[in-house]
Amino acid sequence: MSRGNYSPVTRHTERDLAALLGPSGITVDPEKRAAYSIDETIPRFEREYAADLICFPENTAQVSSVLRYASEHRIPVTPRGAGTGLSGGAVPACGGIVMSMERMNSILEIDMENRTLTAEPGVITSEIAKAARDHGMFYAGDPCSGDISSIGGNAAENAGGSKVVKYGATGAHVLGLEAVLADGNVVTFGGKRRKDVTGYDFIHLLIGSEGTLAVITKIILSLLPLPSCVTDLLVPMPSAASAVKLIPLVMTEGGVVPSSIEYMDRQSILNVERYTGVSVPYSGAGAQLIIQLDGMDRRRLWNEAERVGDICVRNGALEVFVAEDRNARDRVWSIRKLVAEEEWTNSMPVMSKEDVVVPASETARFMEGLPGIMARHNASYNAFGHIGDGNIHITVFPDAAIENEDLHKLAGPMRRELYDFVRELGGTMSGEHGIGLKRKEYADIFLSAPQIELMKRVKSAFDPGCILNPSKLVP
Amino acid sequence: MSRGNYSPVTRHTERDLAALLGPSGITVDPEKRAAYSIDETIPRFEREYAADLICFPENTAQVSSVLRYASEHRIPVTPRGAGTGLSGGAVPACGGIVMSMERMNSILEIDMENRTLTAEPGVITSEIAKAARDHGMFYAGDPCSGDISSIGGNAAENAGGSKVVKYGATGAHVLGLEAVLADGNVVTFGGKRRKDVTGYDFIHLLIGSEGTLAVITKIILSLLPLPSCVTDLLVPMPSAASAVKLIPLVMTEGGVVPSSIEYMDRQSILNVERYTGVSVPYSGAGAQLIIQLDGMDRRRLWNEAERVGDICVRNGALEVFVAEDRNARDRVWSIRKLVAEEEWTNSMPVMSKEDVVVPASETARFMEGLPGIMARHNASYNAFGHIGDGNIHITVFPDAAIENEDLHKLAGPMRRELYDFVRELGGTMSGEHGIGLKRKEYADIFLSAPQIELMKRVKSAFDPGCILNPSKLVP
Repeated sequence: MSRGNYSPVTRHTERDLAALLGPSGITVDPEKRAAYSIDETIPRFEREYAADLICFPENTAQVSSVLRYASEHRIPVTPRGAGTGLSGGAVPACGGIVMSMERMNSILEIDMENRTLTAEPGVITSEIAKAARDHGMFYAGDPCSGDISSIGGNAAENAGGSKVVKYGATGAHVLGLEAVLADGNVVTFGGKRRKDVTGYDFIHLLIGSEGTLAVITKIILSLLPLPSCVTDLLVPMPSAASAVKLIPLVMTEGGVVPSSIEYMDRQSILNVERYTGVSVPYSGAGAQLIIQLDGMDRRRLWNEAERVGDICVRNGALEVFVAEDRNARDRVWSIRKLVAEEEWTNSMPVMSKEDVVVPASETARFMEGLPGIMARHNASYNAFGHIGDGNIHITVFPDAAIENEDLHKLAGPMRRELYDFVRELGGTMSGEHGIGLKRKEYADIFLSAPQIELMKRVKSAFDPGCILNPSKLVP
Repeated sequence: MSRGNYSPVTRHTERDLAALLGPSGITVDPEKRAAYSIDETIPRFEREYAADLICFPENTAQVSSVLRYASEHRIPVTPRGAGTGLSGGAVPACGGIVMSMERMNSILEIDMENRTLTAEPGVITSEIAKAARDHGMFYAGDPCSGDISSIGGNAAENAGGSKVVKYGATGAHVLGLEAVLADGNVVTFGGKRRKDVTGYDFIHLLIGSEGTLAVITKIILSLLPLPSCVTDLLVPMPSAASAVKLIPLVMTEGGVVPSSIEYMDRQSILNVERYTGVSVPYSGAGAQLIIQLDGMDRRRLWNEAERVGDICVRNGALEVFVAEDRNARDRVWSIRKLVAEEEWTNSMPVMSKEDVVVPASETARFMEGLPGIMARHNASYNAFGHIGDGNIHITVFPDAAIENEDLHKLAGPMRRELYDFVRELGGTMSGEHGIGLKRKEYADIFLSAPQIELMKRVKSAFDPGCILNPSKLVP
């Protein structure tokens, strides 16, 4: 672990931070330090990283006091949400302090007149969705990790998920932020107003900045009227190519913007069958799509489902299951959720979990090229994800049994070839999981030297001492 | 005019730039210089500003060569769209070069599979809307100046308009940008992909940055399926207060997100009557609303219109006119357009045109406080605008006949009181017209010292020599 020019965390630091946050506001317990030094990136990193101290601020003033202290003493601070990230964003790459936002976990207000919900960063995302729903409103941010990830982490990573095709990623729902700068100054950007051209748009600069520019302490989210009807179509298709070719037609021919278009390849479905021991209908199909439609009017949704179903059938669908009631819909989505769940319990070593994104028009070419790349790197894979956005998750397994440390050696060249291919197609290496530690070394594939220079300068503008989540995102 | 530490434009500069752009690519003609040194801000500024030279690049390479030259020679460059701005954003505050984007006016591509339209910055916005429509698609950015403003200007100002309530401002539709940095480097951000967390979100940092960070040379816009049905409700209300109180109910009780909710106060309607000599129905009403609903399904729109109409009637509407066919709808909107048109032909001196925005919940309090502020500054006014976003345009007239230069002296204290009031309500001084030259001196009302410091540092990060549109936006 490189500590760069940072100061070590000493007994003095502990004492000073305990004075700022109270004795229960910090810990140096080795087990806690280990637990708060990892996230859900698989495989873990080649090197191990470890926090020296974890702090648990309970309010903005405490966040401010810790950052001011850390700036003065030149100690790195890694802000951490629920630790469910998939790129090492919350991993303390230079040691120092991990700042867990878990105690700032209140929904502060639901404002019906302004259709806003104001939350602290540590609120679990599904609680926000539920609170909105209890008020007849809809929070349209929907990362698939919503039951375990926090809204602060969602904002810091610009989390996507399965509803981006219609509603946009997390950033599309953020109207205002309170944040603490590296020097401890508290700033607010935006608010409940829905238009604002007073100054630069620092809200969307902070969204997706992975905690490298400021620590988000309050988030004002925009809510929508709750769609009263939802219908899911489960569509087995003969091949990956036929599945992805269908997708733009739903919107152009069908004139429908679905709330989700999810993709599961044959291998993903077979994995689910093996995992559950229950057979999935049409598990031999080349790929399966879930197309979700939502709206306010049952009849209109019927029409849309019919129109979309027709397009599917005309383009080779083996079947179109229409799930309208809660039970049927849950069954459809359970397969999709099992694809992700299976991966956590699968005992096979994972070489890499990828999160590439290409323009919708290039998904077919991408699917054609993918098997060759994997074969050249002696890897198997399954692919699934948010194909409506061109965002495809690929879980890559080495074909031969290998030692854990070899996974990283194999992953590097595979990623480089995959990312080069994605760049050629007008895509990028991460749609929603982030750059963090995992992909930083590949940034030059997608960002030109002047862009990287701009990123460095903007990082310096916000955090001249480079104490905020150092060694992430910015190459 | 302060020239700061900039170099003058000399015969040498002229010769050098003519070599870069060809002889027809520049002009120093005094009439042209005068015409390209103003925008549509009313009243004009206290001081006059004048460009030394206008250049007309035809492609990105030419933009790059001019900026590289200007950086090397320390000459200010003010990028200019159609010059229809309302805050002096395109006015060359430090002289030097005005870079008109008018010759970069091609729609480069409409990509149906990706639902994108790629345009050069000089394309008039309504041409983009039309091109999309001709392909059965919808460009949802809709500044009211769409027939005269250009998409580059829309992006640079994050132009709003009457469809923001449902579809968002210009920035919400931008997927990618090509831009030239102050040093001449060409960078691209985003693309046709719909998710991207590779690096900081510089797209939305450039949107609304008023040409102070980079010159936008290409814009990739997201298109939507074209709504096949549109219905407008014209709703006269007994008072301003009753009109604004109604608005949140449309969305919360009605569960409908209209594509527009426009507001015209009594004075605006009376001005239109005087201007046209034709009486407007219910012109004595305290205020009139236009509520526009759009969608894909006629029956559903009927239901929505009925639901919204009921809410209007239950909350005091004097009448609800439902306009479904093109002619009726045009009649409804012609009144709203005449409010703006009347102001251009009105011979009364205008003290200020304001563009404040408050949260939806505060529009009633704002309307209550507004007459007092105006009275204290011996001013009359009419108010209209995008009330669905809490964005209200106020045209302010001095009560007594005064000399032109006195307008500015009167406007200053009036603005400060108005802006203080707006800030108290959680709003801001500009929703869509921009800060530019006009509102820069008031930025400290809304932005804290650390925020202003951040803006300065980000400006420096992009434009260390401060040649790009100096003296704008950043206090």
